[in-house]
Order: sequence, then structure tokens, then C-alpha cells
Amino acid sequence: MTVLGVDQLQAILVDSFPGNVVPRVEEVSDDFVLLSQAIDTQHGRPGGTLSGPTMMMLADTAAWMAIMSHIGPVLLAVTTSLHIDFLRKPELRDVMARARVLKLGRRLAVAEVEMFSRGRTEVVAKAQVTYSLPSPGSDS
Amino acid sequence: MTVLGVDQLQAILVDSFPGNVVPRVEEVSDDFVLLSQAIDTQHGRPGGTLSGPTMMMLADTAAWMAIMSHIGPVLLAVTTSLHIDFLRKPELRDVMARARVLKLGRRLAVAEVEMFSRGRTEVVAKAQVTYSLPSPGSDS
Amino acid sequence: MTVLGVDQLQAILVDSFPGNVVPRVEEVSDDFVLLSQAIDTQHGRPGGTLSGPTMMMLADTAAWMAIMSHIGPVLLAVTTSLHIDFLRKPELRDVMARARVLKLGRRLAVAEVEMFSRGRTEVVAKAQVTYSLPSPGSDS
Amino acid sequence: MTVLGVDQLQAILVDSFPGNVVPRVEEVSDDFVLLSQAIDTQHGRPGGTLSGPTMMMLADTAAWMAIMSHIGPVLLAVTTSLHIDFLRKPELRDVMARARVLKLGRRLAVAEVEMFSRGRTEVVAKAQVTYSLPSPGSDS
Repeated sequence: MTVLGVDQLQAILVDSFPGNVVPRVEEVSDDFVLLSQAIDTQHGRPGGTLSGPTMMMLADTAAWMAIMSHIGPVLLAVTTSLHIDFLRKPELRDVMARARVLKLGRRLAVAEVEMFSRGRTEVVAKAQVTYSLPSPGSDS
Repeated sequence: MTVLGVDQLQAILVDSFPGNVVPRVEEVSDDFVLLSQAIDTQHGRPGGTLSGPTMMMLADTAAWMAIMSHIGPVLLAVTTSLHIDFLRKPELRDVMARARVLKLGRRLAVAEVEMFSRGRTEVVAKAQVTYSLPSPGSDS
Repeated sequence: MTVLGVDQLQAILVDSFPGNVVPRVEEVSDDFVLLSQAIDTQHGRPGGTLSGPTMMMLADTAAWMAIMSHIGPVLLAVTTSLHIDFLRKPELRDVMARARVLKLGRRLAVAEVEMFSRGRTEVVAKAQVTYSLPSPGSDS
Repeated sequence: MTVLGVDQLQAILVDSFPGNVVPRVEEVSDDFVLLSQAIDTQHGRPGGTLSGPTMMMLADTAAWMAIMSHIGPVLLAVTTSLHIDFLRKPELRDVMARARVLKLGRRLAVAEVEMFSRGRTEVVAKAQVTYSLPSPGSDS
């Protein structure tokens, strides 16, 4: 069950990164959150492909969105680890990230994120991301 | 033994990301390459800390620099995986990345990257990064 | 498309670990390979749960099986990296591993592995595993 | 500062894995814990090398020992994630693991583990391991 929808998650993103271009929240369901990142030339790399850091940032954000879709706004959640395998060179077009929550504990949440080019099905990168959830009086 | 020094690595960075602010190559030795990233407000996160993606980008770049310091310019090397543990909230000041090559094979190179705030010794994030090295006729 | 089935993969496992109890290959399909590991008390940990190393070994093996189901026997393939998130304490009963190939390159193959207790659907651990595939004259 | 020494850590290992051959605690210092694993033919793989799971088990154990050397016995600490890069084929001889604590929080501890063959300096595998530390009433 989700407690935040597309518009609410989008608003959190816009508020959290004032002045930045943020990903677009495309879909929220019980199973996943889908984000897209419009690609401009600034995200490119030699050879006409998308930069790794652009994908890492999107994976991190998508995992956060997926967690919040289930438990509401946790603005002070922090990423504790991120693992990503880059599988194929993505084309220089919109990249999509589908994030699914694997675990929602009281202290830790883990999500996996599949990334692919818009209109394609081949996975270009796959990530597993862990967030630490804030709790009263906690230091980590 | 290194085959590229501070100035050569810096030039590769500037050429590879035209129009972007790039990290500064501070030191190159047989054992490691040291980069720094000047932090401005754009890299910040709520709570006055540095964003995770800024550190992931720096880790990725530092690993690439360390590998090239040993084998020369491999502009088409691509990151195949990156794992990062975020250990402490960094202050909102320059962040340093010290990258050390763990393996230099013909096809894969692995580096570890320690990150810390300038003037501090505590590690704020630690990464292990794998690059695939180009070879004639290879698709990886 | 798969080129090896349940019996062939099981035979490779038995031959590769002579004298050891090996996982059972339960199912092979275009999309995944499913293994099971019968649990005895030797795999246990304080608190009546399954040991982490048992799950890491199973994840590693399941990824190898999934890769071979698509490309045939590559006995000298070697694991180059493994990342695993432990999500829940598994019960002390048979553990299942469903491995899916994410990438099959000429030099590297990547698989993801979901692990769960037999008869349960909750994922207890999730891994991403990279194998280096042998090629003539290669040192990886 | 360490609160447990070689003999105490060794005793915890022996007690935790009754009936199993456990690694030997070789050295405990402020900076690291050093373990060794005697290798017999059961740990071997085709080609006369050490199996990956043997190294993953040792990395997991070494990280746990390093954390306990600083905070005392936390028998119910559980591994939440493990990332390992296999760098070189180790020889079929004793393998050593040097574990260093990167972070000791109230809820999470992170260690890195370098592995090498006894008498050698080349790193054969490198891991980053996260443990969740038990706290009253916590489900992690």
C-alpha cells in the first residue's frame, strides 16, 4: 500500500533540490515507483552515452521515492550504501528508473532499482540501495 | 610507477567534461591519486551536508584517474560497477578522494577510494570501483 | 533460450564439488534458474537462523548456473564481484535462490539472485554477482 | 582502543561455531584484526585455487571480529550487506584477512577487509561489510 502518490512525491523532489532540474515521477504503484530523467547534452559522455553519475543519482533518488511512497515523507533519511552494476551503454535519451522496496525495517530500508532507456526493455544498470531511516535520538 | 602526473591528469579531466567544473588533481604518487572537489551550495543537501551523488561522482572520477596514472590515457574505459558505503555526514566543505589501484588486469581494473573532508582524517565514505578497459574488438 | 537443462546443470555441480553436498537444481527456464539448498544444523547460527556464508555460497552458485544455462559449460568462469544485502532472518529451513541473468557480454556476465525460504515469498537476501568469462589467452 | 584481545576473540569464534574449524585470530591491534584460515583440499576449486565462498566467509568473520575488538561481544550483530571484489586467484595456501573498522555507529558498523595469501603482500580480494548492531527492542 502506498501513502504518497505521484504529485506528492514530485513536490518533495522539487522542494528538496531547489533550483535543480529533478527527475519526473511517472508512476507510483504498490510494487514500484517509476522515475524518468530527461537527458540533455550535459549528461553525456564521450561516445554519445549517458554518464554513470547521472545514473547513480537517479538510482539513489528512485530508491528514496519508493521508500517514501510506503512510509510517507522521511526527508532526513540518508543513503548508507549504494551498489550499482552498469550493464550496457545507454543511449543518449531519457532514462527510466523503476525502484522496488525489498525491505522496510524500522531502521533500514533497502530498494532495488532497474534502469532502462525510455521505450526500451533492456536493463542498462541495476542498483541496490540502502537507506537509514531517522528515529528519535538516533545517530545513525 | 606512474606514467601520468598531476598536470596531465588534470588536462584529461578538463577535456573530458567541457563546460563543467571538474575536481582538482592535487597529488599523484605510486600509491594513490588525490583529488579535491570544491563544494558550493549546489552540492548541498538539507541539513548542511554534502550530497551523496557528489561523492559518488568524485569516487568514480578518482578511480579512473588512479588507473590512468598507471597505464596512461584510457578515455574509453567504462565503469562496470561501483559500491559505496556512506559512513558519516561530511561537512559542507571541500571533499577529498584518495584512490588506490587494487588490481590492474588486461580487461578489468579495480580501485578503492577513501573520501574525507579537507583538513580532516575521518573517512566519510569508502568506495570500490571496477573499470572495464578497452581492448581491440572487445564488447566487454 | 537455454542450452543446458536441470540434469546437465546438476551434473556440473556434482562434478565441480566432489564429496560436497551441493544445491539442487530445481528449475531452469528462459528467465531464471531456481536452486534449493537443504539446510541442516551445520548451516545454522545462534538464534536458529541460516548463516550468511551459506547464502553467499548459494547466491554465487545460482548466478553461475544461470549464466551457464544460457551459454553452456564455462567451468573456468570466475566470480569477480558479489554484492549481497541481507534483508530478513531466514527460517532454518530450505532456502531457494532464483537467479536471473542481467547481462551476457563476451567478457563479463552479471546476474541477480533473489533468495527466499521454501514455501515463502518474502525475499530474505538479494545479490548481484559478476562473473568473468574465460577467453583465449585472457588473464582477465 | 581495543576491549577484546586475541584469546577472547578466538574463544568467541570457537563458541559460536561448535564443531566447525574456525579461522585463527592472529593479531589484534587498535587499527586492525588479522585472521588466518588454514586451507585444506575441501576449500579448493578446479585449477588449484581457493573457493570464493571460503573468502566471503572469512571476510564476514574478520569484519565481525574487528567490530567486537572495539565494542566487546555483540553476538547478535548481523551482517546487513557484504560487497567483495575478487582481484586475483589466490594460491592454495593459508589465506589472511586484515579487517579495519571504518565506522562504529550506534546502529551500524562498517569494516573493510583485505585478503592475501600468507607470506604475500598482493591483495587477492577486498571486501566492505556492514553489520547491524543490536539495540533494545530493535528489529533493525
